[in-house]
Amino acid sequence: MATFRAVDPATGEELGESYPVAGWPEVDAALSAAPDLASAPPAHIAAFLDGYAARLEGDRDALCRLAHRETGLPVEPRLRAVELPRTTSQLRQAAAAVRAESWTQPTIDTSADVRSCYGPLGKPVLVLGPNNFPFAFNAVAGSDFACALAARNPVLAKGHPGHPGTTHAMFRHAAAALAEADLPPATVQLFHDVPADVGLRLAGDPRLGALAFTGSRRGGLALKAAADEAGIPGYLEMSSINPVFFLPGALAERGDALVAELVASVVLGAGQFCTNPGLVVLPAGDAASRFIAAATKMMAATAPGVLLGRGVLDGLDESVTALVRAGARLHTGGAAVPGPGFRYQPTLLTVSGATFLDNPRALQREAFGPATLIVLAEDLVAIARALEGGLTAGIYSAAGGADEDVYRRLAPILRARAGRLLDDKMPTGVAVSPAMNHGGPFPATSHPGFTAVGIPAAIRRFAALNCYDHVREPRLPPVLRDVNPGEVWRQIDGRWTQGDVR
Amino acid sequence: MATFRAVDPATGEELGESYPVAGWPEVDAALSAAPDLASAPPAHIAAFLDGYAARLEGDRDALCRLAHRETGLPVEPRLRAVELPRTTSQLRQAAAAVRAESWTQPTIDTSADVRSCYGPLGKPVLVLGPNNFPFAFNAVAGSDFACALAARNPVLAKGHPGHPGTTHAMFRHAAAALAEADLPPATVQLFHDVPADVGLRLAGDPRLGALAFTGSRRGGLALKAAADEAGIPGYLEMSSINPVFFLPGALAERGDALVAELVASVVLGAGQFCTNPGLVVLPAGDAASRFIAAATKMMAATAPGVLLGRGVLDGLDESVTALVRAGARLHTGGAAVPGPGFRYQPTLLTVSGATFLDNPRALQREAFGPATLIVLAEDLVAIARALEGGLTAGIYSAAGGADEDVYRRLAPILRARAGRLLDDKMPTGVAVSPAMNHGGPFPATSHPGFTAVGIPAAIRRFAALNCYDHVREPRLPPVLRDVNPGEVWRQIDGRWTQGDVR
Repeated sequence: MATFRAVDPATGEELGESYPVAGWPEVDAALSAAPDLASAPPAHIAAFLDGYAARLEGDRDALCRLAHRETGLPVEPRLRAVELPRTTSQLRQAAAAVRAESWTQPTIDTSADVRSCYGPLGKPVLVLGPNNFPFAFNAVAGSDFACALAARNPVLAKGHPGHPGTTHAMFRHAAAALAEADLPPATVQLFHDVPADVGLRLAGDPRLGALAFTGSRRGGLALKAAADEAGIPGYLEMSSINPVFFLPGALAERGDALVAELVASVVLGAGQFCTNPGLVVLPAGDAASRFIAAATKMMAATAPGVLLGRGVLDGLDESVTALVRAGARLHTGGAAVPGPGFRYQPTLLTVSGATFLDNPRALQREAFGPATLIVLAEDLVAIARALEGGLTAGIYSAAGGADEDVYRRLAPILRARAGRLLDDKMPTGVAVSPAMNHGGPFPATSHPGFTAVGIPAAIRRFAALNCYDHVREPRLPPVLRDVNPGEVWRQIDGRWTQGDVR
Repeated sequence: MATFRAVDPATGEELGESYPVAGWPEVDAALSAAPDLASAPPAHIAAFLDGYAARLEGDRDALCRLAHRETGLPVEPRLRAVELPRTTSQLRQAAAAVRAESWTQPTIDTSADVRSCYGPLGKPVLVLGPNNFPFAFNAVAGSDFACALAARNPVLAKGHPGHPGTTHAMFRHAAAALAEADLPPATVQLFHDVPADVGLRLAGDPRLGALAFTGSRRGGLALKAAADEAGIPGYLEMSSINPVFFLPGALAERGDALVAELVASVVLGAGQFCTNPGLVVLPAGDAASRFIAAATKMMAATAPGVLLGRGVLDGLDESVTALVRAGARLHTGGAAVPGPGFRYQPTLLTVSGATFLDNPRALQREAFGPATLIVLAEDLVAIARALEGGLTAGIYSAAGGADEDVYRRLAPILRARAGRLLDDKMPTGVAVSPAMNHGGPFPATSHPGFTAVGIPAAIRRFAALNCYDHVREPRLPPVLRDVNPGEVWRQIDGRWTQGDVR
């Protein structure tokens, strides 16, 4: 069997442990082995999610050390104080949603005697983990994982080969927590890596209920095509440049502070966030020139962080080169830092509005890493209109009313092109909130109606709408019966209530 | 420009009026002309939907005459007493949902200062109408139409070429109602027909926000592939055989009554419903033999109804032939009625459980029309496991507890394979209820989480999740602001309420 080793991105050296690359026979067997969890007691699923969170917390130090070594992400504050707590919080929120059954949205029509709720898919969910969140989006522990399980679907996980040791350690905790919660071991099955053709065959296998992916546009579109052909819902988050518009009043009022805010967001985590602000739009003029000069200085003074791996380094270098070729001008950065290890200079580029509008496609290429492109716009609205679908769009405006007119023209255009609209705030930092949308129009994701973060909404990606027509009351799932001892929120005859059917 | 004429299916003769077949230039222009309705006042949309419903009612007699002539469906009770009232009710329910804004599911997280709701796609929705509901699923008046508009999306309608006169008459009322409601004329644009290649190009055009289709599996899969490639959400209802299981206790208790109930459902509307019971599963034995004998007699005594057109007649004939070729035995029917016009004998087929399990794919072929296939099963559960995804699945069981054990084993298997599970009830008849699911797993539809009937759920197919992060309160859409004068149901910090943010 083929194997691979992870690489320490700080040194470029291979790490000791080797991990298997699964072939089709293993994947095929896993598809067949996935249990039907539709009748699993919700209490067991919730106990698993809570127990798993506790185990991860208990092993916090070792997990952070492992993840740091494999990803280069700093233990403090990133891994230990932010990402691991976020991960366990997601698991616990999913457990709470399972107990409250709120994600099932029970709807009862007493006069027609029709009742419905969301339920499991009855088939496993394929979760493919990205490189940039070894905990919070790990295929065996992250948001997609927690949501797929919360909807009572087994998970086939494809870990990211960048951090197999981290994934493996988490998986062992998951296996122990499954046993404690009295759930079958095959509830969670893991592949550390698969060849591309095996991955595509898996994504299009009719035994699959859905798939969730976070990663590159190229990889995502290939998986989407395979899943689409088999009628499998795919939730893919594929890329986003997260435009941020600075309006004239805001620049006049607090330009210096905004430079600092932008640069901090661009270089946070070495820029390796889906919501990294990769495009900045400034009204051309003196204020913009001052902004660029200050940002250039600040970026140049920022120490390059370790990137997740050689793939990120090479991809970033290619993208920066492509942006320059498309007409962008380099102000600082633009090159890898000599090794050992994988680092890239914080990079600032600019382009005129006219050049951007001449070639909006090439100039919206995502440069994943600590890089951003500033557009010097004669017409902010024209730039907005040329944007493709993304995860976020932000507008900084004057505290007073100076920018209201521009805001009013700009906001509806950006609204149609982004899942999340922000005022006076950088897009990095995605709250795990029931109101969050970490999603957006194609090609940022595969469906504009769903979010990958935020419970219970993200759970409903992995659910089927189950309608019961004239079904005898004792045969209904508990959440749809007349009496509602768990005080689940239900919509009965048009009213949301925690009460019984009367 | 190419044109076509409708055909009276009762006589097979062409009707007088001719209608254009649109080419790509017309379609292209329509895509560009579709207005952005995102900022249209909800009150205008609601006024349009209500005004349109009133106009359709006012023209009831002429519309029913037209639809009858083009589809062969009887004026009474079908068109006048059932389908037109259903259509106007859908339009009014959509108007009510627009006013109540309940479909937007506002979610507010006060501590994170993140708020979200569903909003329009910002692009037109392509609605393709089927042949079998000239009013209730008409591309310019039916459920998909009403839902797309309710979410403030313009509609590009592709009418069914089987009833262009009906569609045209409805469209003229829509145009008048649009003007009265102060909405742009291009809010609704209609093509009576397009060549297949133009339709596929349209379905995959990135200017499109979504598409809704009801029709054949072949046509649906082609449209889905085109839309998928462009990342356009497609909601396609493509076929379903709607299995009905009769358990031994039910047959013993009320076998004769069940025969009558089944036959009435099979031949209703000449069997031309998406939810027609095309597969019946009986436990092999004496009761089943009596059931088949009685059903055969009753089917043979039923006068063949007029079919919607030659396409339905040919398709039905092909399907019945294919079922016989796959091992089904013909008990009655199985042939077209000699012309003029398009009629087919009510048709009953049977097959052994063993033959069915040997060739489940071929024997699940949909025979759209007044035909059903009875499986004589040694093992009901094995048959259930062999079923593919469908819109509905029904179980008839004894009024007492005699069938409970079988029910308990069967129901979870059918649950995973159908959008709507019915007890002691035929699947024809789809209540327009907020709890309805007229949907189901692939290949019945393209997504297991959405319904084509039932407001407000069906509206959310045509919506994007719009998140507002830290957006200043006065800039939020009214439905997300602190004060809630319209008493919209909103989820605030985990509780559903009609109150204000406090």
